[in-house]
Amino acid sequence: MSKYFSEKFSKLTPYTPGEQPKDMQYIKLNTNESPFAPPKNVVDAAKAEAGKAQLYCDPECSALKEKAAQVFGVKKEQVLPTNGSDEILLFAFMAFCDASTPVVFPDITYGFYSVFAKLHNIPYKTIPLKEDFSIDYRDYLGVNATVVIANPNAPTGMALPLWQIEEIVKSNPKNVVVIDEAYVDFGGESAVRLIDKYDNLLVTQTFSKSRSLAGARLGLGFASESLIADLNTIKYSTNPYNVNRMTAAMGVAALCEEEYFKDTCKTICENREYTAAELVKLGFKVLPSKTNFLFVQSDEVDGKTLYEKLKARGILVRHFNGERIAAFNRVTVGTREQMDAFLQAVKEIVKE
Amino acid sequence: MSKYFSEKFSKLTPYTPGEQPKDMQYIKLNTNESPFAPPKNVVDAAKAEAGKAQLYCDPECSALKEKAAQVFGVKKEQVLPTNGSDEILLFAFMAFCDASTPVVFPDITYGFYSVFAKLHNIPYKTIPLKEDFSIDYRDYLGVNATVVIANPNAPTGMALPLWQIEEIVKSNPKNVVVIDEAYVDFGGESAVRLIDKYDNLLVTQTFSKSRSLAGARLGLGFASESLIADLNTIKYSTNPYNVNRMTAAMGVAALCEEEYFKDTCKTICENREYTAAELVKLGFKVLPSKTNFLFVQSDEVDGKTLYEKLKARGILVRHFNGERIAAFNRVTVGTREQMDAFLQAVKEIVKE
Repeated sequence: MSKYFSEKFSKLTPYTPGEQPKDMQYIKLNTNESPFAPPKNVVDAAKAEAGKAQLYCDPECSALKEKAAQVFGVKKEQVLPTNGSDEILLFAFMAFCDASTPVVFPDITYGFYSVFAKLHNIPYKTIPLKEDFSIDYRDYLGVNATVVIANPNAPTGMALPLWQIEEIVKSNPKNVVVIDEAYVDFGGESAVRLIDKYDNLLVTQTFSKSRSLAGARLGLGFASESLIADLNTIKYSTNPYNVNRMTAAMGVAALCEEEYFKDTCKTICENREYTAAELVKLGFKVLPSKTNFLFVQSDEVDGKTLYEKLKARGILVRHFNGERIAAFNRVTVGTREQMDAFLQAVKEIVKE
Repeated sequence: MSKYFSEKFSKLTPYTPGEQPKDMQYIKLNTNESPFAPPKNVVDAAKAEAGKAQLYCDPECSALKEKAAQVFGVKKEQVLPTNGSDEILLFAFMAFCDASTPVVFPDITYGFYSVFAKLHNIPYKTIPLKEDFSIDYRDYLGVNATVVIANPNAPTGMALPLWQIEEIVKSNPKNVVVIDEAYVDFGGESAVRLIDKYDNLLVTQTFSKSRSLAGARLGLGFASESLIADLNTIKYSTNPYNVNRMTAAMGVAALCEEEYFKDTCKTICENREYTAAELVKLGFKVLPSKTNFLFVQSDEVDGKTLYEKLKARGILVRHFNGERIAAFNRVTVGTREQMDAFLQAVKEIVKE
């Protein structure tokens, strides 16, 4: 760091995104992207908007909010589009946590939560997952803190049923509960329909996983009108034009293609179950996933070694350091062909 | 605000972007957009990237950094692309200002600086422009604070010569000096070539004005490698994938079209001089502009009234409240046809 960098960030360790190596063509199963390209009308929407990119985008994202409101069955005042769902999560940490309002989240979850907390000097507490890597919802009842839960959780892939989420929201009426539903479309139960019932609930979703738009950067927040108004105060004090013209239009177009994305999600879920079953046959421990990835561990080969040997064979998965999870790898579910290549490589590695 | 909103933001007033009315088709001279669409290869770049938007963008923006380094004659480690230049400015306020490092900027300038300061609880001081609305560079020598100057300034349009900028940078070696060059391509002198000489200089530019990409959201920061490293720590702690796939590619393509943008900037400058001369004939006071807008005032009609009467005629300009500037309007320079329509309307209004 330079001598000019604010002292308050001297110990800040940023988030590390999944690697994007450029040395060769990998089978990329490390960042939970969809293996399926966006459909034609989504691409056409981008092109049409690019042709008038000299004009500012609509800071209100009105068309996108209206379409999202229609598809999700909410009011447009209950929706906030952001530059990826990382941004709506950042806004939530800024708006609903501070020195006197701490935040709690699981010890094993999306790595960005602790970075957001440190960035804004917010006290945080992590609650350990149970022995089987599940979240015990009772740990989050009446905690007197802002609660952030990824449901399904990452990198475990495991989901809580909606009634348990509702219990958490109901028991913390003085605090906001953020449910990060990045992976909900692969088998989870969404809490979006609870936003009318609880004014302390913020649900975040992303177009990066189930809607094939990781590279377009689009997230949505759903909450009561008053929480969305607070988040808008943060947005208009940081980056009013946060969602660009092409991305907003691609979002609208993607929401018109629900059939396509239902099909691709179904295929991914089938490939997930197939891959999980094959890995179990190879002696792997596979956590029950409701996402587009599998969190897997073998007694035959340790996590880091498996990651490295797969990479040497041109297959990228994601390995995390961390006491309880270093033995595991997170494997994105791709096409059947990709998963067969992955399984073949695993078989060879386990035999060695 | 909701009862959940952090107390620290209770008095935060967000930035107000220029209006984007949807009730009718206006001649939009209110947000300093280019009247010229991006060239074909920029549009094609967006389409090509949209077709693979299921894949995350490169968080490093390597291709864009390399192209920018080549065009601006710097190293790629001295460049940071952001989601519009508002984002690089926000990062700079976060990184280089805090409770013990205040920030100073002119009393009349880009309205977002004070919002960023308030958002992050940074003490700030504004320094009045001189009677003629120019910045006196001597006011910023050795101020023992982070300095932020828009050069050319907005909404005045007036520029400081590079040697005065250099004096400010040189006299504040213990603090970062941020030069916001959003409008530099319309006649200002860029400070980018000083970044090798001064490790406390950050220069920001945008693709929104001279490069016809307001709707794509792309900004660039130029500074010493160590300042850029600090800003990257903030970026990777807020939004690692801040620049989406289409925008990054459009940025590279735009930097390959320097000839096109030189031509469009030249046309805009000619239209500016033509419009200024016509307004002077009508008795207007017109500040000397090195930007793509004019800041103008008439003794015949007050600022707010002129704004309203133009709007009623389908022409949008920007009016700011504020003691010293309420008599003025900021008028974006568009095509010759747009400026003739504007001048015709002004003539009618002044006659009334």
